[in-house]
Amino acid sequence: MSGGWERVIPAFRSVCGEDGVSLGEAVREQHGRDESVHRCRPPDVVVWPRSVEEVSALAKICHHHHLPIIPFGTGTGLEGGVGALKGGVCFSLRNMDRVLDLHQEDFDVSVEPGVTRKGLNSYLRDTGLWFPVDPGADASLCGMAATSASGTNAVRYGTMRENVLNLEVVLADGSIIHTAGRGRRPRKTSAGYNLTNLFVGSEGTLGVITKTTLRLYGVPEAMVSAVCTFPSVQAAVDSTVQVLQTGVPIARIEFLDDVMIDACNRFNLLSYPVAPTLFLEFHGTEKSLEEQVTVTEEITQANGGSDFSWARDAETRGRLWKARHDAWYAALALRPGCKAYSTDVCVPLSRLPQIIVETKEDLMLNRLTGPIAGHVGDGNFHCIMVMDPNDQDEVIRVHEFTERLARRALALDGTCTGEHGVGLGKRALLREEMGPLAIEVMQGLKTTLDPKNLMNPGKVL
Amino acid sequence: MSGGWERVIPAFRSVCGEDGVSLGEAVREQHGRDESVHRCRPPDVVVWPRSVEEVSALAKICHHHHLPIIPFGTGTGLEGGVGALKGGVCFSLRNMDRVLDLHQEDFDVSVEPGVTRKGLNSYLRDTGLWFPVDPGADASLCGMAATSASGTNAVRYGTMRENVLNLEVVLADGSIIHTAGRGRRPRKTSAGYNLTNLFVGSEGTLGVITKTTLRLYGVPEAMVSAVCTFPSVQAAVDSTVQVLQTGVPIARIEFLDDVMIDACNRFNLLSYPVAPTLFLEFHGTEKSLEEQVTVTEEITQANGGSDFSWARDAETRGRLWKARHDAWYAALALRPGCKAYSTDVCVPLSRLPQIIVETKEDLMLNRLTGPIAGHVGDGNFHCIMVMDPNDQDEVIRVHEFTERLARRALALDGTCTGEHGVGLGKRALLREEMGPLAIEVMQGLKTTLDPKNLMNPGKVL
Repeated sequence: MSGGWERVIPAFRSVCGEDGVSLGEAVREQHGRDESVHRCRPPDVVVWPRSVEEVSALAKICHHHHLPIIPFGTGTGLEGGVGALKGGVCFSLRNMDRVLDLHQEDFDVSVEPGVTRKGLNSYLRDTGLWFPVDPGADASLCGMAATSASGTNAVRYGTMRENVLNLEVVLADGSIIHTAGRGRRPRKTSAGYNLTNLFVGSEGTLGVITKTTLRLYGVPEAMVSAVCTFPSVQAAVDSTVQVLQTGVPIARIEFLDDVMIDACNRFNLLSYPVAPTLFLEFHGTEKSLEEQVTVTEEITQANGGSDFSWARDAETRGRLWKARHDAWYAALALRPGCKAYSTDVCVPLSRLPQIIVETKEDLMLNRLTGPIAGHVGDGNFHCIMVMDPNDQDEVIRVHEFTERLARRALALDGTCTGEHGVGLGKRALLREEMGPLAIEVMQGLKTTLDPKNLMNPGKVL
Repeated sequence: MSGGWERVIPAFRSVCGEDGVSLGEAVREQHGRDESVHRCRPPDVVVWPRSVEEVSALAKICHHHHLPIIPFGTGTGLEGGVGALKGGVCFSLRNMDRVLDLHQEDFDVSVEPGVTRKGLNSYLRDTGLWFPVDPGADASLCGMAATSASGTNAVRYGTMRENVLNLEVVLADGSIIHTAGRGRRPRKTSAGYNLTNLFVGSEGTLGVITKTTLRLYGVPEAMVSAVCTFPSVQAAVDSTVQVLQTGVPIARIEFLDDVMIDACNRFNLLSYPVAPTLFLEFHGTEKSLEEQVTVTEEITQANGGSDFSWARDAETRGRLWKARHDAWYAALALRPGCKAYSTDVCVPLSRLPQIIVETKEDLMLNRLTGPIAGHVGDGNFHCIMVMDPNDQDEVIRVHEFTERLARRALALDGTCTGEHGVGLGKRALLREEMGPLAIEVMQGLKTTLDPKNLMNPGKVL
């Protein structure tokens, strides 16, 4: 479609009002919130629907006019998922921001797409419940569902895949479905095909998620954090495997390599030993924490780990974890004025030492800055690639490095993305990972649900 | 196809040998292992492939000749999933019975379709690992994946949905795919559409599962079992909610109603009080068990529960749980010569007291025998309907009762099946549960993957 906007804009305005449709400046503002390093690809129009009915009506207009639809939550995705490759209409969902249907006794809640995870947890503050999936950014929960996000707590509480009970989705033709049936929220079901988990991780390419029903958890009675340094990556990973094997229900177990720790020390004026390090968090009752910590410390010490640095109260825990939480900014501060791109591979636990050691050698050899932080309990880790976007040679070296890293993960039975998704840049890697026949199946599903290829085109497949 | 078997049988034999193809007696023998009450619907032919290549070659022959394919594991499903409604070819997979690629450090293993859960756990005995999903029957693990099975441990360890990492699947046209890519087994991934969970729970209607890669868990250091009786269903459910809310990582929390307890007492010569009862199991370290039990007992007593009956060593635990494990047979023994059918609804926890009380009234009013056993931590429960299959009036009353029960669950935000699947009998209920548009989406997925409708036709949709 070109030159036809004058026919469509009034139709959009009749759905969501004068204020609900924007061109020009607002488009750039909206798109500026895409935090990934992928090149800015602004849409032609931004619409701001206020209800699922408006989303549906807008989708019908787009469907009729063959206009691409790009769903937009907070723009905190890392793989260019909100770029409008073919122009089209960005559905910005921040005006749909209600928390709906909190059922405390049933440990579930529904949220509209404008609700972020911090927003939800603040809403839940006095209920004794929380939603633990934590990708770092204060992302929208529907966006987290769309990208199958996870993060530091996944080793204990699972990813979005395990924590979404139901989704309301507007399909490409504007029809509204509920993936587990309207209003349903049993904790388990085997009723028909698992549509919920087909849309979780579909990155906006199969429909617009307009409501997510989530599992909640009781806030743990107590939390303890600890930090422990190791003589080698192997020792840190061995400790992780043994902790998991003993069944300690550890809530977070995060790995930072020496380069990352060094960056954190500089950024936060800390003095952690510059060595492979685990950041740990335990959730439970006071008494169970004691035991979890004792068992874990026995294991880490048997693997040559240092004594634990401890934190019990919220403030000290915050300070202790600050290094981990600020890793992104600490990495960026290594080279002021540079941009960062985070890789995201995931391998079976036993393969972690090999891939991390090889990756560090690769970084050295290619003169690249890429401190490593990882959700080691899941075998998932990131190199935060800090680079000068104006240095074409470096940009190419980073690109080639990330492809080598992904292929290294594939060669070790792993995946090219543990939690960031495929988006724009990993489509070729996805083909290698899945093989042509499985890709054909995915393509078949996409065509069935979106025959005109209007839903976030150019992503995933 | 009629009268054309003489052309097809030799082709089958050329794939899997003389012994690998059967008609007549073997068909009846095979089909006799379907343990559901659904009417026996034998296939025309049974084939016994020995490898995925043979499954693929056989599927190609069926595809060419438009012959239905009915995958068969152990025949322990409860919703008639192995009935050959349109005749066709039963793929009996018991000759593919290898445990493959055990990775102890990575907590994963792959199994062929002939491997049952007990078989796998016996294989794992000396590794310190186990696979906890336990639907009761010694089902094949690939069959459990196909039906999205779960059972007593799901409250802690999840269902098959959370524990399958990868599937090898032969599609209707004979092509072989790996839902997470060949040989891949990362603990988490966000690489493309979640094909794994599309096939988990698809009940053989989208493809034949020929290999499943599973998550394993460390065997808990210790286990404790307990039994506790309550003055009311409400008190038992309130206890359950509070236990979950405090974050006690309870491994099993099973509800038996007074009728079920009475049946168990008679069958096993026990003397439990005839009242709503919880059977509990705790997994952990010795020390953590103490605390789990103390916290739980405080909660149950605050809700009017009895003192716990205790069991620590394996033998006493076995004796204590015998009542629960034998529930099916205890129910059958209430009326010798009768058959049983298990209902399977699942509702949000807070709705359990209402639905159980109403259901018990319904049973009384309609003079039906239906003791109740449930995985109360998930909101999932079963009425074991004991009936005389020759009493047409009773059969009709049972049928009408089970539909009312399912609709009661739907009205309370629940599902018509928590773990048994849709199979043959719940297709109409599935439509009510999902709504016409979501059913249309499911039908679209089915048509994309199996355009000739050869895969287990007449099930699910």
